[in-house]
Amino acid sequence: MSKATVFAKLDRIFHPRSVALLGASNKQGKIGRVFMERFLEMGFQKFYPVNPGESEILGVKAYRTLADTPDPVDLAIVVTPTDSVLAAVKECASKKVQAIVIATSGFAETGEKGKELEQEMVRIARESGARVIGPNCIGIYCPSSRLPFLQGPGKESGSVGVVSQSGFFADFLTLTVTSNGIAFSKAISCGNESDLNAIDFLEYLGEDPQTKTIVSYVEGIKDGRRFYHVSKEISKKKPIILWKGGRTEAGARAAISHTGALAGSPRVWEGVLRQAGIISVNSFEEVLDCLYAFHLQPLPKGRRVGIISGPGGTAVGTTDRCLELGLEVPRFSMHTIERLHKALPPVGGSVNNPVDLSLASLVAPTVHRDAIRIVAEDEGIDMLLLIGVVGGKLLRDLILEAMSDIKARKPLVVTLMAGPMQSVAQDFPLLLRSGISVYSDATRAAKALAMLFEHARFRARVSNGATHK
Amino acid sequence: MSKATVFAKLDRIFHPRSVALLGASNKQGKIGRVFMERFLEMGFQKFYPVNPGESEILGVKAYRTLADTPDPVDLAIVVTPTDSVLAAVKECASKKVQAIVIATSGFAETGEKGKELEQEMVRIARESGARVIGPNCIGIYCPSSRLPFLQGPGKESGSVGVVSQSGFFADFLTLTVTSNGIAFSKAISCGNESDLNAIDFLEYLGEDPQTKTIVSYVEGIKDGRRFYHVSKEISKKKPIILWKGGRTEAGARAAISHTGALAGSPRVWEGVLRQAGIISVNSFEEVLDCLYAFHLQPLPKGRRVGIISGPGGTAVGTTDRCLELGLEVPRFSMHTIERLHKALPPVGGSVNNPVDLSLASLVAPTVHRDAIRIVAEDEGIDMLLLIGVVGGKLLRDLILEAMSDIKARKPLVVTLMAGPMQSVAQDFPLLLRSGISVYSDATRAAKALAMLFEHARFRARVSNGATHK
Repeated sequence: MSKATVFAKLDRIFHPRSVALLGASNKQGKIGRVFMERFLEMGFQKFYPVNPGESEILGVKAYRTLADTPDPVDLAIVVTPTDSVLAAVKECASKKVQAIVIATSGFAETGEKGKELEQEMVRIARESGARVIGPNCIGIYCPSSRLPFLQGPGKESGSVGVVSQSGFFADFLTLTVTSNGIAFSKAISCGNESDLNAIDFLEYLGEDPQTKTIVSYVEGIKDGRRFYHVSKEISKKKPIILWKGGRTEAGARAAISHTGALAGSPRVWEGVLRQAGIISVNSFEEVLDCLYAFHLQPLPKGRRVGIISGPGGTAVGTTDRCLELGLEVPRFSMHTIERLHKALPPVGGSVNNPVDLSLASLVAPTVHRDAIRIVAEDEGIDMLLLIGVVGGKLLRDLILEAMSDIKARKPLVVTLMAGPMQSVAQDFPLLLRSGISVYSDATRAAKALAMLFEHARFRARVSNGATHK
Repeated sequence: MSKATVFAKLDRIFHPRSVALLGASNKQGKIGRVFMERFLEMGFQKFYPVNPGESEILGVKAYRTLADTPDPVDLAIVVTPTDSVLAAVKECASKKVQAIVIATSGFAETGEKGKELEQEMVRIARESGARVIGPNCIGIYCPSSRLPFLQGPGKESGSVGVVSQSGFFADFLTLTVTSNGIAFSKAISCGNESDLNAIDFLEYLGEDPQTKTIVSYVEGIKDGRRFYHVSKEISKKKPIILWKGGRTEAGARAAISHTGALAGSPRVWEGVLRQAGIISVNSFEEVLDCLYAFHLQPLPKGRRVGIISGPGGTAVGTTDRCLELGLEVPRFSMHTIERLHKALPPVGGSVNNPVDLSLASLVAPTVHRDAIRIVAEDEGIDMLLLIGVVGGKLLRDLILEAMSDIKARKPLVVTLMAGPMQSVAQDFPLLLRSGISVYSDATRAAKALAMLFEHARFRARVSNGATHK
């Protein structure tokens, strides 16, 4: 099949005309109830709850069997108990649904018997022409077509795509990131991957014009070679930020009981990820840190960082971190130093790199803006790291003012040290919504810059073998 | 002088009967105004604003000169412009004040001339019997005696002590941590250290019965040998969490223009910190992470971690991180596995290490409590890492219930993955106030456990040369 056909086939799964929920429930605490609530919140139109014992659930007409539902059903979501999933899949096959999300767990991740049952279900589904997502997953989130996720990340459409073997990861990531002001195109939790797997969805998101940045959590990949080729092709045009779980022996053991995945050798993985140009991260916060940088900033032309800091001590520690990460914090040009001298108040601080705004950052916050402009215009600087001490709205406006004047856009990451967690938490969405990459710690901002630079080198290497500073 | 005399002499600085503020001001944006407001908020009784042009500032009687103030003045805080600081110090010498905080900057950190001026000021002060703190600092915070800091961390007394060569660090740390529910005994910003230095204050906090845990930020230490001996002695009984700025060449260059400190060779430092048993960190967030662990948890008896997780994917990644940090995530005893089997619902999840509570963590949150109890009672487990997905109050109560039943207390660190930043930010103070060490990312919680374990090994080594697992 051509690439376009493969894309079109998967794309239909994300835009079903009708959805049936097998195992829909009235009962609090049941996952069938949570899905009900989410579909109602999203306002999905042709939605059919199926439950043999109910005629109405949360005000929506319910059906005793899938066969009873009126229209053709494009997508079925199965949340029935483990021992009744096979029967549900058979119902789906008879109804000729196009795709089946099996949310229920208790299959391959529990051992050989569960694995056989999984294979049987896939055989039945595929014979009827249906594709299977899961089991042991939370399915697909697609705000533009009103498909919900469990924790309710909302209706807003964006351009971040997610593929995750962990349902919780996909769910929690979309909730956290949308609450911080960045929205998603699609998110897929593919669980045990009995049929469609993470590589299929990576390939899909790679082709998807709605998706600009991809985030992925995987524990094991069945076809390493295909994974390498697919992700390398995508990495040439879109960043893939990937957290690989099961890098250690104990971690791999945990992965087996989690998604039944064989995690593979850590050393092999490391090489594959690097050569495929994947942005490899090792924690949830690193996922966020990279997402905020890659999704909002251009790639840098080199490794030279200009640091502008309110607090002097943090500037020192951040300079250390940049150097340790392979970046440079070079002295500014004489012209830049002269301009900074004129722009900054004479007391305290430093007008070389790192710029120490000192108390002026609090007393005359416009120095933030002036320093950004001047440093961004230094040709010896490839990217900027700002450590701000004033609150979000003021800082956002100053940064936007500064950026609007700068011709050649350079990556800028911002650390917010504006007070207690509560106020910082409020300021994050404010800044991120305005396209400003923001961090709660300057060493994390430095790491994000180092990741941007590393990816810029990958792009240069694969595009034309051009040398790169 | 005996240790007790040295302690008593410094202790007087923290408990002045009267304070004069030279450079007190009415004007918004002036540091003399900020200090005024903070002293008023703290309700310090015998407080004398000094300003040649004012008779009253913010409703408080002001004095034209220090000589005009009524009582003897124990502590003088100087915030006048750089070129009038020498005169202010002379006034202090005539008034026979016991200690002078010079907040003003523009001395040794600007070059040789500033350094000479500093030395002259110290000579004059010492001749009159006064000690000097600063210049280029924000002085001392001591809630029990109502001495304020600039950003206003409040009146509550606690048992964390701080010594910092960076004023911003001390100020921001106390603000952030108190807003998270943990209070301070004393915090000192010692700036350029023209007289009293970080080692003096470390020694003081080491002796101070109010101080249980010490946090420090330093860029350069003048007497490395004394620093080593003092901090090693303290580390035998109290943890010192230290961020050393200026570890790289560029960082060291930045340190000189920040506090005039010579940062020293990174490799030498690394050895000194390790051998002195110092908990060495490299970012502001790492300071917080370690503080929350060391201040609230006991030291572990070994390196074996029991992980209890709501989300399965995070359990896998966290297991990886523990192993990479030199910890172990061993299988549980058969007895523990049987108990977990009985306590946890049969669907999904895993009853071995890491325990995957799966959806049960959301549907039946009491499994958090039951799992903690059971894992803590496994003799093969030295410390616990809990990854919770429910909100703060419920989680706090379940943890406290579990802990109240456990005889031998083991370190427990908690990761809160309960939703968007705003809600997590609200839950942090709730948990920390109850003595629960909490983290926003499980790999950071794992790092904190690794630091606890490393320090436990140091203690075992220095106490009796006993072997340690």
